[in-house]
Amino acid sequence: MTTTASARLAQVLERTDRNLDASIDRLCAFLRIPSISTDPAYDAETRKAAEWASERLSELGFESRLVDTEGQPFVVAHHPGPGTGSTRPILYYGHYDVQPPDPLELWRSGPFEPVVEDGPTGRRVVARGACDDKGQVMTFIEAFRAWCEVHGGPPVPVTVMLEGEEESGSPSLDPFLAGHREALDARVCVVSDTGMWDVETPAITTMLRGLVYEEVQLRGPGHDLHSGMYGGTLANPLNALVECLGALHDADGRVAIPGFFDGIEDPPAEVAASWRELPFDERAFLDSAGATAEHGEPGRSMLERMWSRPTCDLNGIWGGYAGRGAKTVIPATAGAKLSCRLVAGQDPERIRGLLRSFIESRLPPGIVATFHSHGCNPAIAVAADSPEMRAAREGLAVAYGRPAAMIGTGGSIPAVGAIRRHLGIDSILAGFGLDDDRVHSPNEKFDVKCLHGGIRAHAAMLESFASTA
Amino acid sequence: MTTTASARLAQVLERTDRNLDASIDRLCAFLRIPSISTDPAYDAETRKAAEWASERLSELGFESRLVDTEGQPFVVAHHPGPGTGSTRPILYYGHYDVQPPDPLELWRSGPFEPVVEDGPTGRRVVARGACDDKGQVMTFIEAFRAWCEVHGGPPVPVTVMLEGEEESGSPSLDPFLAGHREALDARVCVVSDTGMWDVETPAITTMLRGLVYEEVQLRGPGHDLHSGMYGGTLANPLNALVECLGALHDADGRVAIPGFFDGIEDPPAEVAASWRELPFDERAFLDSAGATAEHGEPGRSMLERMWSRPTCDLNGIWGGYAGRGAKTVIPATAGAKLSCRLVAGQDPERIRGLLRSFIESRLPPGIVATFHSHGCNPAIAVAADSPEMRAAREGLAVAYGRPAAMIGTGGSIPAVGAIRRHLGIDSILAGFGLDDDRVHSPNEKFDVKCLHGGIRAHAAMLESFASTA
Repeated sequence: MTTTASARLAQVLERTDRNLDASIDRLCAFLRIPSISTDPAYDAETRKAAEWASERLSELGFESRLVDTEGQPFVVAHHPGPGTGSTRPILYYGHYDVQPPDPLELWRSGPFEPVVEDGPTGRRVVARGACDDKGQVMTFIEAFRAWCEVHGGPPVPVTVMLEGEEESGSPSLDPFLAGHREALDARVCVVSDTGMWDVETPAITTMLRGLVYEEVQLRGPGHDLHSGMYGGTLANPLNALVECLGALHDADGRVAIPGFFDGIEDPPAEVAASWRELPFDERAFLDSAGATAEHGEPGRSMLERMWSRPTCDLNGIWGGYAGRGAKTVIPATAGAKLSCRLVAGQDPERIRGLLRSFIESRLPPGIVATFHSHGCNPAIAVAADSPEMRAAREGLAVAYGRPAAMIGTGGSIPAVGAIRRHLGIDSILAGFGLDDDRVHSPNEKFDVKCLHGGIRAHAAMLESFASTA
Repeated sequence: MTTTASARLAQVLERTDRNLDASIDRLCAFLRIPSISTDPAYDAETRKAAEWASERLSELGFESRLVDTEGQPFVVAHHPGPGTGSTRPILYYGHYDVQPPDPLELWRSGPFEPVVEDGPTGRRVVARGACDDKGQVMTFIEAFRAWCEVHGGPPVPVTVMLEGEEESGSPSLDPFLAGHREALDARVCVVSDTGMWDVETPAITTMLRGLVYEEVQLRGPGHDLHSGMYGGTLANPLNALVECLGALHDADGRVAIPGFFDGIEDPPAEVAASWRELPFDERAFLDSAGATAEHGEPGRSMLERMWSRPTCDLNGIWGGYAGRGAKTVIPATAGAKLSCRLVAGQDPERIRGLLRSFIESRLPPGIVATFHSHGCNPAIAVAADSPEMRAAREGLAVAYGRPAAMIGTGGSIPAVGAIRRHLGIDSILAGFGLDDDRVHSPNEKFDVKCLHGGIRAHAAMLESFASTA
């Protein structure tokens, strides 16, 4: 892996440094538009954010337009690059919509009045969307800007696709991708919506866990009963619920559903080795959760459990009397929401079936379960050794002077699965957020160091993509 | 056991038959007073009900008065009986307050506008309190009336104690009993606030289960967490809660707390034999609960489990997200309310300790439990072979022409424990309610057949108490 920039890249990087204050100004202009996709009252503002981003790309020489959907429009922009040969473009994905800013009273300044203030790593921009995802979108748009200003355009063909409904469940993503396969044809998709390892160390996320989310409702007697009169004679749905769900893990904390681990393979040796080298501070991680101890599948490190091992967690439970004082009731019904994080090798539909059977097989006489699915998506593992992945790693190493950490994430990014499904390509998740960015929370921020490093990294990755074209 | 009435009792019973319509009228007058003790807006009416009952006793020759408390007054009345010798009185307990009538819209007529209508067993009185407990109180007051009218007074000294806060937790009962030990001195207490076996068969309740009611709150992380990011690395309080509580019963449905059954003895052979002879319709019992199957401790009949075996039931549970849709949260806290019905031989404080230890010993690292007690009362077993109990059984047999069923009840009647604690005497629970009386529900009723049988039974029991004095 080379870690020195070519001469033409060096010019681009130098331009990103000189552009930085203007880049911050442009990000702040983007942040002033309250593009809250989930609230119809903000539909006009949300569209305005799409138009703003589209105009920035147009002024760089991109052919850019809005594509309307049943919800918020997509921004689709294309630059042919140097125009030499028939290289397939690199696709960039980000989203211009933001989460609602509530609770407003916890913000130190207006959520849509960005403030540049000093923080531990230098300056930082505070506003809703500063990191998620407007700040991250600006890392690649500003990298395009530097290439365009210095060399007239990016060194490879580039297509940009910006979504406006990522924070409200992406209802238009599937139909949009299905309807624009040709326009979005690309070698790979680069996504900037994840995090760095730390402020000095870039990261590429290659493993995303899947999710099976179930709601179960148990029904027993026809109406609530007095526990004195009926207790001991018939099955209490609440007792039945905790007995089923309490058996989901064995005494060691391992998921006890028979067949749950079938088909799972350990991460590739290269990946596992890189994880072991990561200076992961378990104590700091627990502190971030306000937790006093770790707990989970025995014989696996915390990082391993978080990124490459499946889970089964209750997310909600209800039934009977939850008010003040005591009520001696045997309730007629009880219910819970629970979800399994999945890893590669687990078929979500099969896991859902195993989970339902596990519960049903443990019901006492007189109790009936009904299930409702709230999601069933597989895990995603991105090939770590494709030419594009090698190029991205090289670019990040050039920009940061150190190799990118190859990491997993416990959560899901639905767009990555949809892009693979509809466009047939992998995504490279190179993001520049930090754990303390307060994404989705009041006083969301993005460190200028991350913005700057992200712009430089995208500039360098473009050069690497060009050299592997 | 004699089942023929003495000549003087025969006169009294004949008088109760002739008095019946007037007895119904007096009950209706009592029912027209909305003595809802739990609602301060009805304080004046509640006191009026106490005055009304006190006046009825005064007009029979009782020395009757109201004793004020911090809450509703007690009615205390005494009749010296025939005045021959120094026989200790029989104490009668009942309550003149009633449950609130809500939901009002489900009543077919006004809850405090009693209606006498036809039902399957003949006439019945429909109103709030018709059975619980004004109708039952009138069974003994009308029995006193018949004795007074025919023979000038009851055949034994009688003391009456009527409470006005039974439906609101009896806060004044303990101080009242503690302060009036002398005035309430008695051989035994007769309580009419329970049920018959069926409309033809009287019953004496000799076993009442106790109760330990606990609330447990588990705390894990310092705040709610994203289950993708943190799932698998630390203990989820909801998982921990269902794991603890799900282990409270073994696979057969038996309580699995070590030591839980220590000290429990099976009911006396005589009692067990009488239970086996009871024509208990398990199917009808399950139907009354809208249940399709029975469930409980193996190797025990439903009646046995209900009356003489302890239970552990969850009464409420909460934690995490219970709204519509899905939220991938690991909550910071989770909690539950649960209670054990206790039987003779179980010390409530010890059971509470065992329950708490059981839960605490099963917590994973990083989870802390806090407990709150909502009640800790022992079971009560009344001696089935005391002279007074034999007398009561004889009286019931005379009145009904068949022996009383000796039964248990799964619930608790706190007054029985308080009377034993403060006055040092047992209670004879001879009540005349039926399972379908809709006690605490709209359209509460009391069959005239039960009222009439109850008056005759109390008249006959008085004669039997006199002959064992």
